[in-house]
Amino acid sequence: MNFLEERILKDGIVKDGSILKVDSFLNHQLDVTLLDEIGKEFHKIYGDRGITKVLTVEASGIAIACMSAQHFGVPVVFAKKAKSKNIEGEVYTSKVMSFTYGKEYDVTLSKKFLSEDDTVFIVDDFLATGKALKGLLDICSQAGANVAGIGICIEKRYQGGGDELRAKGYDITSLARIASMDENGIVFG
Amino acid sequence: MNFLEERILKDGIVKDGSILKVDSFLNHQLDVTLLDEIGKEFHKIYGDRGITKVLTVEASGIAIACMSAQHFGVPVVFAKKAKSKNIEGEVYTSKVMSFTYGKEYDVTLSKKFLSEDDTVFIVDDFLATGKALKGLLDICSQAGANVAGIGICIEKRYQGGGDELRAKGYDITSLARIASMDENGIVFG
Repeated sequence: MNFLEERILKDGIVKDGSILKVDSFLNHQLDVTLLDEIGKEFHKIYGDRGITKVLTVEASGIAIACMSAQHFGVPVVFAKKAKSKNIEGEVYTSKVMSFTYGKEYDVTLSKKFLSEDDTVFIVDDFLATGKALKGLLDICSQAGANVAGIGICIEKRYQGGGDELRAKGYDITSLARIASMDENGIVFG
Repeated sequence: MNFLEERILKDGIVKDGSILKVDSFLNHQLDVTLLDEIGKEFHKIYGDRGITKVLTVEASGIAIACMSAQHFGVPVVFAKKAKSKNIEGEVYTSKVMSFTYGKEYDVTLSKKFLSEDDTVFIVDDFLATGKALKGLLDICSQAGANVAGIGICIEKRYQGGGDELRAKGYDITSLARIASMDENGIVFG
């Protein structure tokens, strides 16, 4: 069991059998020391792949992306979920169905910040069905950017999104891999 | 002129006389080396105030908060803009009128993560009319938390929000202070 799995057992809460609350350290309150350790792990694995950008989607991905990017020595670029007055000009857009918010939304990224010259490391807090991640991969594909790896904090393996993307050839590292989960506990593996 | 003002002159773009685009380094693409320098500056000024939490609001504040919090050695907690299924239980809520998105929204923070035992350092990317900041201050007031300082990357002084809050006794440090701005350039001061 690694440091993140230990932390999930200590401070994570399983709600209604299917929701894992990690809001005390990963996505509402943020333990930046833990996030730095996560970033170091990702850099150990993907540090030699010529990464030029760390890509994520707002909001909780931003923290993990920043703490990772400082180890890679490259900028973060994050996709936005709402159309803001502050994004103008040419954008990449992809549609994502959100389980958390119960509706479809666009993820948007300015074309200025991702191109075929980029080699991207994608990060996010959760990987379950993979819908948000597919939106980011779609944006990379539109940009012609090379995806060198994907770093996930917590993968719910039983929801299948990770294995589906691995079968397509993506290199995904999930630090905590949940095989099953219910009120009685969490099984990693 | 400090490092952030120099960067704004180099890479910032003034649009329509009133919008300063800093999306290449501060709020869409993120220069984490610059953000770390910003965090160091904030820590130089507020490092001895007994800060227990760095508070911000999603999304672009999260990056600045994380890079600052690692210098303070404390957690980040960020207010959320949308009501998510993932926040339940008791929350603090404040209403904010957004200029950027042209509508009113709620900022929400779980009561678990802020209390009268906390001494808070608030950070954000921009301070103009101060509406988002007032939402965060309202939440601190509801929590009974002590606000030891406020760190802002870019203050548009001519919009008055900063001086209004200073007059109320808040200790605000804005690294870049814009006195005026139009198509011909930016005047700091």
